[in-house]
Amino acid sequence: MQYPEPISKLIEGFMRLPGIGPKTATRLAFFVLDMKEDDVLDFAKALVNAKRDLTYCSVCHNITDTDPCYICEDTRRDKSIICVVQDAKDVIAMEKMKEYRGLYHILQGAISPMEGIGPEDVKIPELLKRLQDDTIQEIILATNPNIEGEATAMYISRLVKPTGIKVTRIAHGLPVGGDLEYADEVTLSKAIEGRREL
Amino acid sequence: MQYPEPISKLIEGFMRLPGIGPKTATRLAFFVLDMKEDDVLDFAKALVNAKRDLTYCSVCHNITDTDPCYICEDTRRDKSIICVVQDAKDVIAMEKMKEYRGLYHILQGAISPMEGIGPEDVKIPELLKRLQDDTIQEIILATNPNIEGEATAMYISRLVKPTGIKVTRIAHGLPVGGDLEYADEVTLSKAIEGRREL
Repeated sequence: MQYPEPISKLIEGFMRLPGIGPKTATRLAFFVLDMKEDDVLDFAKALVNAKRDLTYCSVCHNITDTDPCYICEDTRRDKSIICVVQDAKDVIAMEKMKEYRGLYHILQGAISPMEGIGPEDVKIPELLKRLQDDTIQEIILATNPNIEGEATAMYISRLVKPTGIKVTRIAHGLPVGGDLEYADEVTLSKAIEGRREL
Repeated sequence: MQYPEPISKLIEGFMRLPGIGPKTATRLAFFVLDMKEDDVLDFAKALVNAKRDLTYCSVCHNITDTDPCYICEDTRRDKSIICVVQDAKDVIAMEKMKEYRGLYHILQGAISPMEGIGPEDVKIPELLKRLQDDTIQEIILATNPNIEGEATAMYISRLVKPTGIKVTRIAHGLPVGGDLEYADEVTLSKAIEGRREL
């Protein structure tokens, strides 16, 4: 026996999402059946609208519903500095900090020769184009602290340094609130290497 | 900073589902943005259709898109026996077994005085009404093997026994493929109690 078609279609729909297997999909589908009709309609609309209304900012390649995005449009922000991140979610993390007032550039990935992702597959050419503007004085490379992120940062820094623009990389070290005992060797070695006089 | 409205609405939508917190909801929402537009439309349609087209069978109270459901309508099934389960998902489990050819009755819950769920809140009155039909010769109580399920089975058996209809309860014991070492005392005691001569 199979479920009636409308529910098996819904289960299939949920199963297309990442990390959702048949059991969870079934549970979610049955939950939807118990939801209020208006809530289900709202959810369905949110799905379609998100897909239809969102686009990428033509300047910084962030996800946005206006183009250019409101960060690029914001006249109060410091246009002389660009923070380079891999992902739109990284922008949210940076903005939560409420300290950075410059612009962003979202690469939408990182260089990964293992997965066949080269510099042209992420938004590096677009970044270099933005740097031709004389107002840019510094770029902060805030790609992830893993192999792909480091390689990407290294690649960009080699290209940008000859132009005379200051290139910085976010610091590596122990996370605040972390425990020395549980720190891995690489992080610890980076923390020692990056030590600062008090 | 917040996400653009279309995406924060989608995140809120996902967060209404059980077991999905803000982090997972954000991950799923961003996944949707990368999906093909047609797939997103299909998923949105599946949500709305499941809610709109599915109803409960007026005979057995199973979830169905036709009324009566195709099990109740199936002339090849044995109409003299009813298996009583708590949930529509239990019917799927039973049908997967491919051995049971009788009818079902879905209670849509179990008696639970702690949660204020009485016999009238689950489909027990509807079951008693079905039993007035002379063709019914046996009911199998396949409610869950926990306190609520046992109480529900006990309650139904007391009401039905005087009518002369055979009332049976599914067996308790060790699950096939299980390990005696890890069995809890109650299951083990039930397994001993229900032992059969070979």
